[in-house]
Order: sequence, then C-alpha cells, then structure tokens
Amino acid sequence: MTLQIGFIGAGMMGQDHIRRLTQVLTGATIVAISDIDQKRAAAVAPPGAEIVSTPQALIRSDKVQAVVICSWGPAHEEQLLECIAAGKPVFCEKPMVTSEAAALRVIEAEVGFGRRLVQIGFMRRFDSDYRQLKAVIDGGTLGAPLIYRSVHRNASVPVGLYTSDMPLNDTLVHDADISRWLLSDEITGVEVRLPRRSRQGRDLRDPTIVLLHMASGAIVDVEISVNIAYGYDIRGEVSCETGVAALPNRPATVISDRHGIRQAIPADFRDRFVDAYDQEFREWIVAAGQGTASGPTAWDGYAATLVADAALRAVESGTHEPIRMIDKPGLYGIPADVAAA
Amino acid sequence: MTLQIGFIGAGMMGQDHIRRLTQVLTGATIVAISDIDQKRAAAVAPPGAEIVSTPQALIRSDKVQAVVICSWGPAHEEQLLECIAAGKPVFCEKPMVTSEAAALRVIEAEVGFGRRLVQIGFMRRFDSDYRQLKAVIDGGTLGAPLIYRSVHRNASVPVGLYTSDMPLNDTLVHDADISRWLLSDEITGVEVRLPRRSRQGRDLRDPTIVLLHMASGAIVDVEISVNIAYGYDIRGEVSCETGVAALPNRPATVISDRHGIRQAIPADFRDRFVDAYDQEFREWIVAAGQGTASGPTAWDGYAATLVADAALRAVESGTHEPIRMIDKPGLYGIPADVAAA
Amino acid sequence: MTLQIGFIGAGMMGQDHIRRLTQVLTGATIVAISDIDQKRAAAVAPPGAEIVSTPQALIRSDKVQAVVICSWGPAHEEQLLECIAAGKPVFCEKPMVTSEAAALRVIEAEVGFGRRLVQIGFMRRFDSDYRQLKAVIDGGTLGAPLIYRSVHRNASVPVGLYTSDMPLNDTLVHDADISRWLLSDEITGVEVRLPRRSRQGRDLRDPTIVLLHMASGAIVDVEISVNIAYGYDIRGEVSCETGVAALPNRPATVISDRHGIRQAIPADFRDRFVDAYDQEFREWIVAAGQGTASGPTAWDGYAATLVADAALRAVESGTHEPIRMIDKPGLYGIPADVAAA
Amino acid sequence: MTLQIGFIGAGMMGQDHIRRLTQVLTGATIVAISDIDQKRAAAVAPPGAEIVSTPQALIRSDKVQAVVICSWGPAHEEQLLECIAAGKPVFCEKPMVTSEAAALRVIEAEVGFGRRLVQIGFMRRFDSDYRQLKAVIDGGTLGAPLIYRSVHRNASVPVGLYTSDMPLNDTLVHDADISRWLLSDEITGVEVRLPRRSRQGRDLRDPTIVLLHMASGAIVDVEISVNIAYGYDIRGEVSCETGVAALPNRPATVISDRHGIRQAIPADFRDRFVDAYDQEFREWIVAAGQGTASGPTAWDGYAATLVADAALRAVESGTHEPIRMIDKPGLYGIPADVAAA
Repeated sequence: MTLQIGFIGAGMMGQDHIRRLTQVLTGATIVAISDIDQKRAAAVAPPGAEIVSTPQALIRSDKVQAVVICSWGPAHEEQLLECIAAGKPVFCEKPMVTSEAAALRVIEAEVGFGRRLVQIGFMRRFDSDYRQLKAVIDGGTLGAPLIYRSVHRNASVPVGLYTSDMPLNDTLVHDADISRWLLSDEITGVEVRLPRRSRQGRDLRDPTIVLLHMASGAIVDVEISVNIAYGYDIRGEVSCETGVAALPNRPATVISDRHGIRQAIPADFRDRFVDAYDQEFREWIVAAGQGTASGPTAWDGYAATLVADAALRAVESGTHEPIRMIDKPGLYGIPADVAAA
Repeated sequence: MTLQIGFIGAGMMGQDHIRRLTQVLTGATIVAISDIDQKRAAAVAPPGAEIVSTPQALIRSDKVQAVVICSWGPAHEEQLLECIAAGKPVFCEKPMVTSEAAALRVIEAEVGFGRRLVQIGFMRRFDSDYRQLKAVIDGGTLGAPLIYRSVHRNASVPVGLYTSDMPLNDTLVHDADISRWLLSDEITGVEVRLPRRSRQGRDLRDPTIVLLHMASGAIVDVEISVNIAYGYDIRGEVSCETGVAALPNRPATVISDRHGIRQAIPADFRDRFVDAYDQEFREWIVAAGQGTASGPTAWDGYAATLVADAALRAVESGTHEPIRMIDKPGLYGIPADVAAA
Repeated sequence: MTLQIGFIGAGMMGQDHIRRLTQVLTGATIVAISDIDQKRAAAVAPPGAEIVSTPQALIRSDKVQAVVICSWGPAHEEQLLECIAAGKPVFCEKPMVTSEAAALRVIEAEVGFGRRLVQIGFMRRFDSDYRQLKAVIDGGTLGAPLIYRSVHRNASVPVGLYTSDMPLNDTLVHDADISRWLLSDEITGVEVRLPRRSRQGRDLRDPTIVLLHMASGAIVDVEISVNIAYGYDIRGEVSCETGVAALPNRPATVISDRHGIRQAIPADFRDRFVDAYDQEFREWIVAAGQGTASGPTAWDGYAATLVADAALRAVESGTHEPIRMIDKPGLYGIPADVAAA
Repeated sequence: MTLQIGFIGAGMMGQDHIRRLTQVLTGATIVAISDIDQKRAAAVAPPGAEIVSTPQALIRSDKVQAVVICSWGPAHEEQLLECIAAGKPVFCEKPMVTSEAAALRVIEAEVGFGRRLVQIGFMRRFDSDYRQLKAVIDGGTLGAPLIYRSVHRNASVPVGLYTSDMPLNDTLVHDADISRWLLSDEITGVEVRLPRRSRQGRDLRDPTIVLLHMASGAIVDVEISVNIAYGYDIRGEVSCETGVAALPNRPATVISDRHGIRQAIPADFRDRFVDAYDQEFREWIVAAGQGTASGPTAWDGYAATLVADAALRAVESGTHEPIRMIDKPGLYGIPADVAAA
C-alpha cells in the first residue's frame, strides 16, 4: 500500500529528500536509488533500497512505481521522458529542463500520454503563508491584484560557484512561479534593472530588480539580493484595488533587550521552507499513489524556463523582453483569460 | 519495525489522534482499539485494528507494544497502572489522574518498575514557539526569569458543559505545566483572584487571574478568559533580569483594508497547536519504540493535579494555598534546586 | 493675552518645563520664578522673569496669573493652599502632597473656593497612545473592561537614591492614575507581590507585582521593573468582554540586520513622553487662561496618595489593603458608580 | 522678537498653516494676509493681521519680515522673485514653480542674492520616522543604500479634479524629494510603468510604478496608488548592502477582536503628517528669524520640477527619460558625487 519510489540523484538536495521520505513522511518507501556516483548512492541509500546503475534502468524497474529526480538540470529531460514513456508519476526538482525546446518536448510527451505524471519542485506553493495569501486574493474581498512585490533575499551565496546569471536563471524562477500561481496569471514580458552593486558580492551582479508583466496587466516587481548578510528574507505583498495583502514575518521569539524589540530571521531556505518541502512530498505521495500528479506542472516548468531565458536577454538588451507561450494544452487547466471570462 | 499501538478511547480527542497516527505520522500502526462504546470503536478503527472489549485486555494483548490512553480522566489510573505492570510505554492524555493519591500511586508504580513508561499529553512543550522561548531563557543572556505572564484565552466554551471550576482544573493545567517547564521550576503556592465577570459567560466565573508562586521566587501571572469571543489567543512573556522574551503572534496574512492593518487569530486549540500535537506523537513513537518515554512525566501529571486542587481551594479561601510535593524520585530528573546549585 | 506664569522650583523637572513653556509652546510667559536656591533660579530664569525670594510672594504677586509648582513634594501643600487662597490656577507636579490629611486639606480648600484651580502632573493622560486606547474602551465595542495589565519598566534607577519604597510611592502612582482614568473607575484595594529579585538592582526590592482592585470589580495587574537594562518600556493592555485593546509599540525604524528584525525602544521617560508633557501644558495654558483647570484633579492626587500608602502597607502586611475614599465632591465630577447607573 | 509674517493664499492648505502659526507654534505673528479672494482673506485673517490687496504690496510691506506662500503654483515664481528682491525669507508650498525655466530663474535670483531665503514645503523631511530612517542610513552600519522602495497610497482622490497626470506631477514629487534626501543623491532618469488599472478610479491611470535612477546607481522603486480605499499608507524601505531599514507603522491601538489583531491606518495626509507640518514651520521660524532659510531648497524645488516633467514624458515614451541638471551652485551645498569622493 506504500508507494515504491525510485530515487535519482544523491546530492545535497537529494539527500534532504531521502531523509524526508524515510524519516518524516508516511506512505512511501525508497526501493531503488541511482546516482552518477554509485558510491555516493550506496552511502545514502536507505535500508532495503537497491543501487541501480542507470536512471533508465531504475525508471523501468518493475518495483518502481514513482520516481523522484534530483539529478542535475541537463539530465532531467531524458529522465522525464523516460518516466512518461513508462507511465510513472515523477517528482522533478527545478529546473524542469534547461531549454524551451526541451520543455516543449516534455509537455508534448505528457499531453500525448494523456494524464498528468509530472510535478515540478516549486515548494513555495506548499508553504502555509503563501497558501493563506492566495486564499485572501482568491477570496476577492480586496478586488483584483494590480501589483505584486516579491522580495527574495539570501544571506550569502557561494563565491565563485554562484555566477551573475544565477539571480535570473536560478533564483528568479521561484518568484516567477509563485507570482503566476498567486495571481492565477501568465507572464508576458520581462524587464531587468540593475541597481548599484553591493560590495558584499565582489564582482557579482547583485542586487537585481525584475519587472514581470502579466497577461492581466498586473506588474510583479521583484527584488533579488543574494548577499544581504542578515538572513534569508522572503517577502511578498499584493496591492489590490481596495487593500493590500502580505506574507507575515516568520514566527520567532520576541526579545526585548539592548538591541531593541526584535525577532530572529531565518538563516536559509531550509530553515524557512522546511515545512513546505514536507507538504510538497506529502501531496505528491498521494497523487503518485493514484498514478498521477498534482501541484506545479510541466507547463509551470516551461513557463519558468521562458522567464529565465527572457530575463537573461533583458539584461543584455536593457528593454522589455516579451514571452510568447504556445497555446495551453487542456491537460494543464483552463487558460487564465478564458477562466476569467 | 513499526510501533504496534493499542488505542483506548475513541472520543473527539481520540479520533484526532487516530487520524494523526494513521495519516500524518510514520512509524506506528494501531493494531487494537478499545472504547466503552464498542460501536464507536468499530466506527473509527483504522483498517486492520482489532476491536478489543476491555482496556485491560487491550493492554495485555501480545501484539500491543505501546498504549495511547484517551479515555476519560477517572479511568486513567487503572489503565496506567496496568500499562506499567505490563512494562508497556503509554501516552496518556491529560488529566493524568484526578486525585493526588492516584498520582502518587502511578509514580510509585513507575518508580518501582525502574524505567520511564508514561508520557502525559501536555502538547505545548512540543510547540516550536514555546521551544524557542525556552531556548532563549535557558540561554541565559537575559538573566534569570522573574515574572512569567501567561495569557490563555478561548473564544468560547460550551454553555452548561463548561463549569466555573474548569478554568482552574481543566484550563489552568496547561499554563501551570508550561510555566514549570519554561522556568525549570516547581510551583509552591497558588492564589486566585476573580475580576469583574464577563457577561459573555452568563453565570460562569470568568475571567480568572491566577498567581503561581515558584520555588525560585519567580511569580507566574496567568489570565484565563474562556469566552472572549474573538479567538483562541495564547500568549506568554517572561520578564528576566536584563530583558524580556515573548511568544510571537501566529503567522497569518497581513491584510490592510478598511479594518486596519491586521492578522487573523487562531480559532481554537486545534488550529493553534496542530503541529505541536503532531510533534508530541512523533517524539513519543521514537521513545516508545525504545521501550521508554520522554516528554512530560508522571511527575508532571502529579504537579498538575496538585496545582488544580490548590487553585480550587484558593478560590474558596481567597488566600495563598501552598503546594507541597513529595521528594522528587530520581527517575524524574534532578530537582530544580539541586540542579541550580 | 498671554498667560503670565509664576514658576516655583528650578530643579531638573522644573528646568524641562521652563524650556517647554518658553521654547515650545505658545500662549504663556514666565514672569516670575522662585527656588530655594536663588542662584539656581537666576541661572535658569528666562529673560524678563523676576527672581522672587519666596513661593508665597510669587503666588501673591499681582503680575502672576497662574502658577507652576515643581518644588519638592513636602512643600506642595502650602503652595497649593496659597494658590487656592489667591484664586490662581496652578499646575502641580506629582506628588500632589505626601499625606492623606494634606490631600484632604487641598480638596477642602478647592471645594470651598468653588471652582477647579488645581491640575496635577499625570502626563500619561495626555499621551496620544493612551488617549486612543481610552477612546476604544469608552467606545464600548469590546464590552466592559475586566482586566488591565500595566507594565512599567525602567532601564535603571540611580543606585542609592532610589529606594525600595519608590516603586510603590513614586513609580506606581502613574499606573494607578492611568488605570483610574482608562477604566473610569476607582481603586478600592491594593495587593503587592514580590517576585524573585533582580540582581541588577542589588538590594533593591525589584521587580514588583501590584494588583489594584477597582470599584467595578475589574483588576489592574501591574508589573514594575526598574532595572531591566534594555530600555524604558511602558505597555498597557485591557482585556474586555469581547476583545482586547493594547498600547502600540513606539514607532522606530524597522531594521533587519544580524540582530534580527527589530525596532529601538525608548531610553527613558522624556524620550517616551515628550509629546505628552507638551500637550499637558498646552491644555493647562488654555484652562488657566480661563481661570480654571482641566485634566487630573486634586481628587486624582488624593487617590494617588491613598494608593501609594496602601501599597506600602500591603508590602508589610502581605494582604489586601483596602482604600476608603471620602465621598467625591461634585466639583470633581460624577462618581463612577452613579455615572454607570 | 516674534517673527512678523506676511501670508499669501488663504485656501485649504493656507488655512491649516494659519491655524498652525497662530494656535500651535511660538515665535511668529501673522501681520498681513493676501488672497485673490479678499473676502476669504478677511474671513480667515487672525486678529491684528492687515488684509493687503496684492502679494507684491504684502511682500514689500515694512512690517513683513518673512513670507509664507500658499497661493496656487502658477503664481509662485513672481512671488518668490519678489521676496528674494526684498531680501525676505520665504516659505513656499510645493510646487515651487511649474516649469524648469522658472525654477532656474528662482535659483539664479537666490544665488545672486548670495544667501538662502527660500524653503520649499516638502514636509516629509520633518517627519520623525523619516528622520530616524535617514539617521540609520547615514550611520552607515548597513552599508550603502542600493534600492529604496517608496509606497504612496491614498484612500481616494477627488473624482474629476484629480487627473491622470497628477500621480506624476503632484503626488510623485514627495517620493522623489524624500528619495533624494534619504539617499543624499540626485535623480538622473525616470521610468514609468502602468499596471492593470484599478476600477476604483474609473478612468484614472492608477496605480503607477515609477523607477527613479539615482546618480549613485541606486534605484528608487515607487508605487503610487491613489484610490486604494483603505487609508493613507506611506511606506519606505531601504535595501542596503548588509541590511534593510524601513519606516515603522504609525502607532495605533492594538485591537484584538473578530477582525483579527489589528491597528488603524491614518485616514489622510493631515492625520499622518500633522507633526511634520508643525516641525517644518518650527524650524522655518528659527531660520527666517535669522534672515535665512534651512530645509528643502530652491534646488530641491528645481529637482522636483524636473522629475515631474520627466515622469510625464516617460509615460508617453515608455522608456527611460534622462534628467540633466545644471551644475549645483555652491549655495545649495556640496554636490553628492563630490561629497562622496
């Protein structure tokens, strides 16, 4: 009755998900694991899990009912297509794929299969603060959303490893995805503005302001700061027609001392989103157990790919870079403009 | 490898814990269930669980490795003693027992057994806000705790069912237990003051102010309001020598509208403490799996019984009612005064 | 057209009020000044003010239309009686007088005169936060007030000069007065509880918990901490029948840095109440210009004297010390119990 | 010793400043008043003030030592030049003038005179919250400011009277001025983005996003919403290299009731900035009494004119509209780039 999972990719993120699936959540068992580094796979494999030499063999294994992909981005397309070919539900960490063409191939395959199998790892959608915020907006008492301000601040990023493109192709995707979801909208264009650089990041292009133009006309205004030293600070505020709704601060002991009246700020994304990651897999296990997927779709992964590409172009061009999506397949729900009509 | 649980008591609280053990948490299976109403037991029993006619038979069953007691208070003593006699770990909802003599018999039995088996259901100790607050106090940067202000507000209580003694023998026990735990201290005396009554509660004695005098000299100042209409509002603030530490508000969307800038307040204890209940059982499963117990002890249950009794006496006497505990058995840790020396 | 003021007492508080009357506010001129130390009087006298040798001569001076008393407490009675005899409006810093008998003599004199002349320096009543809080309570939407929690924290007090009686006869009077005013109520009894002492204050009795029993049955629960190191922190919260109203935090830049998300706390009472002091004199100038007084009355000064005396008795007795006031003269408004009827 | 003021313009804003100068503040007397509507001038003139038929006659009057201009914008240039010609300090409500050429003429005249005489009515610089925020930034502990987010929300604007240009030429100037002051920087370019329109404002272009590019490279990101229904909500947040500093919420009673835990929001700009207006004139009276001016300069008025013009152009062009200022005369302080060197 427990979902039998094949697990691909045993890096940092993969190991955290293995811990989650084996120690925190119910309903799933990791029966097979694969990593390009077989020793690493063996080292982190839970008891009873078979070490499989290739992702392909793992996906095709009869005992594997559903797949989790935590390999690096360039390997995702082939592994996703293999899962779809096998008709197996698959959870895939972001980025879904690394090119628009690849994203379209995944969509084509899933649409051809005729049932959702793919869930992409945009964990913010499972965070209770974001869910409450969406409920307020969807409730409609504040009128239509007009401006969404998304603030994405990291205490620091690894020097050398984190390059100037990454605020746009790695970090921004979270803000872009949550904006589409919160506003039930699509992104039609991207602008990037580069403020005075922080000396914290040496040569890094940081901070960054991104404007996302939405199909409804709403504008999403994103601040990305990846070396702001003081903590991992995620904020979001929606200006609507008759009011404003915003994410709350994270709960932390209210201390009054010589530094003032104060509350601690999360140190990093694991601290901030630990419950969201748990909930993400909790829901995936349920859907995968029914042979399908819920949550963020391949369409969402496609949108994220487009926005990252457009943002990188916008840095170069300095102008508005349009995003043009294919018509939305019915598998991924009613298009926003039709639903609103 | 999963913990085989026998479950006693299928009322409202019991049903919530059954849901928790079967749908939320890993590591445990309910193999047997017993309730005074066998039909109700059958209705809520999870698949595979045997309906057992008596608590005694359930506790003694070979397939039961650990027991959860959610029956009504007067039945607890016998069931706890049975569990201890069987050497089986047991989670018991509050109240542990309903008299000082009964509490001492449970302690005597467990001390005689020589290993902790009993965990009492004071879920606040598992709440992350309280845990952070305790960490700040224990960290010592604010100096010794001198005053703890505990606010316990219910939106409403059931008319007729909730009597004027219940703020003291049912509600206060949570504030008393969390005070002992937060301050690593024992209660030595109780005073009760009755402010002007709220017309919300008709003839009910509400609100109530309780002063708990602690062994260290610290004073715990409790407000209990059980009909305050607006929500379930639990607050706590510790005045220390060089600063103050307080529970944060619960996170909720920050809405700016014609009612001001505002955040929702939890509706009830389930809303507020749902994660604490989950964590409570998560830790119990681990300890019970090792044949023992962690968390709140029979000693804590004994202390709660004493404080409720003293508070009821204090209403009548209008004066300071002392609490005198037996010497603390070593099984329950180092006494606070010795540990502090 | 400007109010001609005679000013008595040129100590720290007096000098601050001289600055206020000459540099901040309109409508008043200090025409005469008197201090036991004539050199000090001369040093701080504003241009054009005459140095007068005695308070009596100053009060009787034809050019003095109204008097401000900032001398030490034991001198107040004689000076107040002199002002009343002269029919001159007078602002008197707290304490009004230092004994119940003296307070009654002041009341008798003013009632005999037949018009209000005396305003006592309880500045909190002029603070906009307290005024908004009172407006909410008086508005009645939250039902009757049942419990008022008043927190009075000083960063530190002068070692040696500030004695163990002063939390009760010097500090508490502010909480007592603001409680009577906020709740439109009278104090009928006082209890004092002494928690574990803070080592910050060496031998000082600190902190202190005071319970004020009000005529309506409401209870005021006061925390006084005078050496809490981190700042001057004044809080107030009223638990009513269907909701709670509290003073806001003082506005201060919201800083997010390595100490968390935080706001500074006022350093001392001048920082906190500077605007309230200004407003207090602004309103006094208007009333005094009309030959009378508004704001806190001699009756309020009498009540403050009684509560300080009772609190000191309560420390010794450990029990409830009743307060019995004379019938309230009509000059001071409708008694609370009659008004409520 | 009191400053003798000639007052021009007795409309709504003028009347509020008359009240302020006569009833709230010390040190000034309105000795003459002029308005295009002489009846209105007579109606609002304080006792003793002469009704003068023309602004010119008022400015030239021997008894007028300093001038306050609250006439409509197109009349300001002539009146300012007259004041400068007369060598009289002048407070001028915004807008200083209505064209770049006019601004330059005022600057030329004042520079020719050789001493500051002109103070422009940007009252936010006198608000204690903004002053604390600037002190934090200038203190340097958070590193250089990189992004400033300014939120400017009005509950509503008068239908018909408030046109679609006004968010840019009337409302934006406050955000622009406070940005230049907070960051000690100049604006070099403006972009405007128009989100989905609010239906609250019918045909009005609302809300508006404005990006101000500063000489330092910092970007100011402004949200202007003028029909947001819920209140007058002014926010400001500076993202610096190692932390963030923001304006606090305004203090208001913290109410817990069925709408949640909440605080009221100011209704309009008078409610929000009443103390700032007072302080603005308090400081002006001191400087004018010394025959000069402090606070916002003609240079600041010139900058505001340029940013409003550029913003209006940016709406049409959809692109970045540069702002080019003349070299800053020494009268107005060290240029930011030189000061920073």
